[in-house]
Formats: sequence, C-alpha cells, structure tokens
Amino acid sequence: MPDVIDLIRAKRDGGQLTGADIGWLISSYTAGDIADEQMSALLMAIYFRGLEPTELQAWTDAMISSGERLDLGNLRAPTVDKHSTGGVGDKVSLILAPLVASCGAIVPQLSGRGLGHTGGTLDKLESIPGWRAVLSNAEIMTVLAAAGCVICAAGDGLAPADRRLYALRDVTGTVESIPLIASSIMSKKIAEGTGSLVLDVKVGSGAFMSDIASARQLAQTMVELGNGHGVQTSALLTQMDVPLGRAVGNAVEVEEAVAALRGHGPADLVEVTLALATEMLRLAGVSADPAAALADGRALQTYRAMIAAQGGDPDAPLPAARHTEFVTAPSAGWLSGLDARSVGVAAWRLGAGRARKEDPVSASAGIICLAKPGDAVEAGQPVLELRADDPDRFDRARQALAGAVVVGRKAPEHAEPVLERIG
Amino acid sequence: MPDVIDLIRAKRDGGQLTGADIGWLISSYTAGDIADEQMSALLMAIYFRGLEPTELQAWTDAMISSGERLDLGNLRAPTVDKHSTGGVGDKVSLILAPLVASCGAIVPQLSGRGLGHTGGTLDKLESIPGWRAVLSNAEIMTVLAAAGCVICAAGDGLAPADRRLYALRDVTGTVESIPLIASSIMSKKIAEGTGSLVLDVKVGSGAFMSDIASARQLAQTMVELGNGHGVQTSALLTQMDVPLGRAVGNAVEVEEAVAALRGHGPADLVEVTLALATEMLRLAGVSADPAAALADGRALQTYRAMIAAQGGDPDAPLPAARHTEFVTAPSAGWLSGLDARSVGVAAWRLGAGRARKEDPVSASAGIICLAKPGDAVEAGQPVLELRADDPDRFDRARQALAGAVVVGRKAPEHAEPVLERIG
Repeated sequence: MPDVIDLIRAKRDGGQLTGADIGWLISSYTAGDIADEQMSALLMAIYFRGLEPTELQAWTDAMISSGERLDLGNLRAPTVDKHSTGGVGDKVSLILAPLVASCGAIVPQLSGRGLGHTGGTLDKLESIPGWRAVLSNAEIMTVLAAAGCVICAAGDGLAPADRRLYALRDVTGTVESIPLIASSIMSKKIAEGTGSLVLDVKVGSGAFMSDIASARQLAQTMVELGNGHGVQTSALLTQMDVPLGRAVGNAVEVEEAVAALRGHGPADLVEVTLALATEMLRLAGVSADPAAALADGRALQTYRAMIAAQGGDPDAPLPAARHTEFVTAPSAGWLSGLDARSVGVAAWRLGAGRARKEDPVSASAGIICLAKPGDAVEAGQPVLELRADDPDRFDRARQALAGAVVVGRKAPEHAEPVLERIG
Repeated sequence: MPDVIDLIRAKRDGGQLTGADIGWLISSYTAGDIADEQMSALLMAIYFRGLEPTELQAWTDAMISSGERLDLGNLRAPTVDKHSTGGVGDKVSLILAPLVASCGAIVPQLSGRGLGHTGGTLDKLESIPGWRAVLSNAEIMTVLAAAGCVICAAGDGLAPADRRLYALRDVTGTVESIPLIASSIMSKKIAEGTGSLVLDVKVGSGAFMSDIASARQLAQTMVELGNGHGVQTSALLTQMDVPLGRAVGNAVEVEEAVAALRGHGPADLVEVTLALATEMLRLAGVSADPAAALADGRALQTYRAMIAAQGGDPDAPLPAARHTEFVTAPSAGWLSGLDARSVGVAAWRLGAGRARKEDPVSASAGIICLAKPGDAVEAGQPVLELRADDPDRFDRARQALAGAVVVGRKAPEHAEPVLERIG
C-alpha cells in the first residue's frame, strides 16, 4: 500500500505518480481513508506541478470508477452532449439540446447549478412552473424516448469522488488548475455515457479563463481526455467579455431562449448556438441543417416536448420581478464595452445567483441588456434594466457595475462570438 | 476579517501577506477556526512560494504570541543556548551545555525527542535511571541555579501554534520548507527567553539538509530571525555525511558523552563541541577557554550536578543490550564511507528511534562504529557493532546498511567536521 505522505512529496518535488498510486489515492480519499488536509496539500502541489497526460488519464479514470456509468448504448440514434465552462447570459443549452435532438441526434445533457457570477442551466429551467431537474435513471430514459433530449441534474452516483474533491478544492484555493478542472468536467461527462461531446470553452472577463492561451490549454486537455476515453470530443472557444444575448438571470434567460427557438434570438446567441449544433451533429455523424430546424419550428417543438416530459408547463407565465431600475449611458457615442463579469456579479447580487451551493436563487431577478457593444447610445439612455424582488438589492448591484458600461467616440470593431475550434 | 480562501490564493499566486493577515491566520488556526485542509493548502503554497522576510518575521511573531514567553532576565549571568537541526550520533548537547555553564554562562536548553533516523537529546538522557525530562518552569529555575544549565522538554506553553502546525506539516508533505523550518525552530527558542543562540546546522546524508547551499540558506534565515527578535544568533554548518563520534543510540551516546567529559572523546565530536562552545561564549560575552574546562574536569562536574538536579543518578549503570551482531568490512583497504543516514535508519530499526512521536524507544539499542572513515581495515574486520534487545530486529537493520560501508584502495581526504560559520 502506498504511503500518502510519500505521494504528496513525490508530486511536490516534480515526480510522476503511477496509475496505481492515483487509483489508490482517489479511492482511499472517497472512502474517507485519506484526510482532507493531506488531499488538499496534494491538490496544491498539483496546482504548481500539473499532471502529466498519463497521470491525468489515470486521475480521470479513478474518478469515473468511483461511481456508476450510464449505458446509453441501446438508444435508436447517436448520442452527443455539450458542456460549457460557464458564462454570463449563457442560455445556449436551452436552445441547443432540443435543436440538435430535432435534427436526429440524442442529447443527454446532465447539467449543474450556478455558483458565483455565472448562472446555471438548472436554475434557469427551474423558473418554469412544475419543471423537475432531478430525475432517476429510468426517468432520464423516458424523457429521452419522448423528446430525444433531456436536461437534468447529474445524479449523485456519477463520479462521487469528483463531488468530494470539488468541495475540497472550493475551500482550499485549488480550483484554478487546468488538469483538475479538466478531470472534474470530463469524469462526469464520460460517466454519463455520451458517445460524443462538444465543449464550449468561454474566454474573457466573464469566463473562468480570461485569456485565450489558458482557454486553449484547457480545451486541448479536455479534448485529449475525452478522445482517450472513447468519447469523440472537440471544443469551440467562444467570447465572454460581454454577456451572451441580452438577458442575464433565470426566467429572463428562459424567455430569451424561447424567443430564439421562435426565430427571434439575438445574433450572437444564435451564432454560438448554431456553431455548437453544427459541431455536435458533425461528431454524431448526423447530416442535417440546424439553421433550418431552428427556422421551421422543429427545435421549438422538441423543446416543448422536453419541458413537458420533465413536468414543466411550457405555456405557463414565468415569474416576473416586482422592481425595476435602469443603468444609463454616461455620454453619447457608441457602446464599446459591457463587462460580462460585472454584469454577472450584479445579476447575482440582484438575487439571480448564489454564493454557496445550498443558497436559493430568485427566478425573476436579473438584468436585461437594452444595448450591446456596437450600438449607438445617447447620454442618459437606459443601457441595462435591473430587476429584483427586493429593492434593497439595487445598491450593491450598481456598485458591481461601476465602470462596466463603456461609451466610446467610435464604433468598436465587431467581436466574433466564436473564436476558434479545437480537436 | 480576512477570508482564508483569498489569503491562500494570494500566497499561491505569489502575492505577499500582511502582518495582520498572518497574525489572524495563526491565531485563528490555533483557535480551531481555520480548517486543517485550508492551512495545509496554504503551507503547500508557502512551500512553493516561500515567505518574504517581513512575512517570516510576522509568522514567527504570531507563533511566539500564541503562548507564554519565559523570563530569564533575572539570572546572575548571560544566557546562551544551542540548537541542532538533528544528526546521527549527535550527543553534543550532553557535553556542551555543562561545558559552557562551567565557563560561566547559563544554558537553558529546551530540547526535543527523536523522530525517524535522528535521535533526540531527551531520549538519550532518559536512559539514565531517575532522570526527568519534564520540568515545571519553577523546576527549570531550580536546576539552573544548582548547575547553571538544564536540558529538559520544551513545555506545552511555548509556541503552541508551532506544535499544531508541525503536526499538520508532518502528515501533509510540507515539512521541508526553509521559512517554515526556520520559524518553527526560532519561535520556540525566542519564547524560551535565551539571550543568545548558536545554531548547529548539519549538512550531509544524515542531516535534514543534504546540500550546503540549502543548509546555508536555512542558517542565514534563522540567524536573521533571531537577531530581528533581539536574540544574538549565529550558526555553524557542521558535516553529517558520517555519524558524529562512534556511538549511535541512547545509552551508548550518554556513555560516549561522559567519556568526552572525562577527556576521552572521539576527535570529531570534541572538535564540533569546542567550536560550538567557543561560539556560545563569544555571543554571551564570556571570556573563558572551553578546552581547559573540558580538560580539568569542571565540565564533568557540572554535568553530574545537572543530572542529579533533574533526579538522575550519574553513577548508575546504564541499560545494556542483550544481543550483539557485527557488520564487517567487505574487503581490505581504507574505510572511505560510512553513510550517516543508513546508520541512523539501522539504529532506529534496532529500537533506538521511533516512527511516531508516541512510540517508545529502547534505551540500550544502537550502533557502535568500530572504525571511522580514514581508518585502515582488513577484509572481514568488524566495522559496526549492532546492539538490540530483540534479535529479530537485526535483519531489517542490516538491510538499511546495504552499501553504507565503503572500503577504498586509498586513504580518503580528511573531512573537516566544522564547515563554516554564519552570522
């Protein structure tokens, strides 16, 4: 049996751990046989030393082996999923899953909740009356049979080691490590059983990765891990200096997603969604035109079927906030900056997000971007509409927005929403 | 109130912590308000990033402030202590404390027990029937009044934060950090109240620091910390590639120390002891010749007074091991290597050392080096005498000694026991 202190020291000193060492570490930690203070020291050593590809493969394997693995092999069509590293206004999944399903692939999207300034897909969908995020494995299969897609919570049985490790990383300053991020994401996606996977790696102020070099490295690491485990994987890097679309929050993002499914989506949101759909269909080997499926209402129909199959009423009115305030343009000119992180933090402070995973979120709070970079604005023209149930929240939200709205004298260059493809 | 995760991340990213941050970290950790897994992640970040001089000063201050500080200011003569970073066969304290006291300085030596392959001064002295390591503060003063020196356990009241931190470092692979080692040693020595301090920093295979550059850096760091806290401090770097003297164990080291006090000590042991004594007397401002005090029996008299004042019988026979085996020279030539670490590990396996601080040690187990590097040997001539109460221990001790005894065709160059002085 290896000695945990020896393994910590080996990694600390730049050595390489064997697959057997790593398997033992993860299974012993999950079983409670390695103390939190030892694992956190190892995680900090990994933060500094990284993991070699073979170590990372073994680490991910061990996390997958800590739990169950869904078997989606018996379905009538190829399976493909998408994972986003998280952004502000990122309601892409709500449109994308039914869109790709309506083209003939099966989309089993196991999602998470929001934390901090980035929203979570499940929080958004929970603003729909009756909709249920938590499904049994049998219910997942029923929804997939009915709609061809499902968006639900990843069950506790998938990669339980990751849940325990993530909770530890969260309180020990060891979240921001590319191999640890990559193995956390990929262990759950591989255990979920999808045949292929497209990663949406966000880059910019509102993203986990603010520079393109780190984003590229994370994307490459995850693509290699997926392919190494038999899941066809590729990644798009997409911009997140500015919120995606116009709505940031929960119910407001569902409304914007439905508008996009009806053919009225904002250009950047539609462009990112179609690029991801094209990539997913390519990996799944399905020949179809997602733009046509969006235009002719097939995607909307699939969305309604999916919501209904999970207990939701797609026609029910969504909760609306009681109070509204505006942030206006400080001068006339062209809106040249609308800082994604600031808008995300402000929406969180309005009630749309949470600081700890057990906190509730407000369905109705959020922000509408009335103008986006490239738009001409007058001095005093409303740029952001802030919504909250509790008017005491506006002050701190405004503080987060200090300097976030930038008006220039010239029209800014058009920023491409999709930056590059990897894999 | 600072956020511990922010402080971990700041240190991880190469930032500097303020004195207030560090004071809060140490006092909150000691109070149990910061979790072990957070402190161990911070310690690993410090392992990689180090501590700037002002951070280290604050870290040490905070550890001193976590407990009591002895007041030795009312004594009749200047106080001076010695600390060794630990070696194999290092019985220097047993000779040095009474030697320096017999020259007119007061030596309050608060010591520790052995762990792993290095022995502990208290373990050695406890082989003397009746001798007590644990004294109250009042008893310490009584022994100092009677003998001018004391060697006893550091009380729980001195730098309790260090005790807690050291226990955490021990299980999390964060022991080997120069600023953490320096603050751990110096916080206790400063809290002990000595006016000056000489550090014996061992260098070589049997030492904590195997290369001279690291040893020098540790010595300089501790010297600066001591002087910065008003304790006149200097350091000697001394060699530890080969055991010091000929005896390695507990009772066997007491016997060798007494022999040295009677004028029959091995040359390397006497040389290191006199060099440290000279340095201690210089710092204490006492003009005296330690070689004369050793030669004329004053040091031996002081030793006997100190042992008696702590309940020990200096004339009682010491425990002797029941079983003896020999390791012989593999060929004829000159003994050119006798690896200190291997000998230390072998003595530990024979029973002289412990793996965990709650384990007992054998008073009688140990090793006698019948030859030292530079001696001519015949093939088959006994080089090491292994002693144990339990004959089953010989096998594993011999395994530790594989390759430790090196015989060459030429006489090796003489290795100087004292390498350099710092401060």
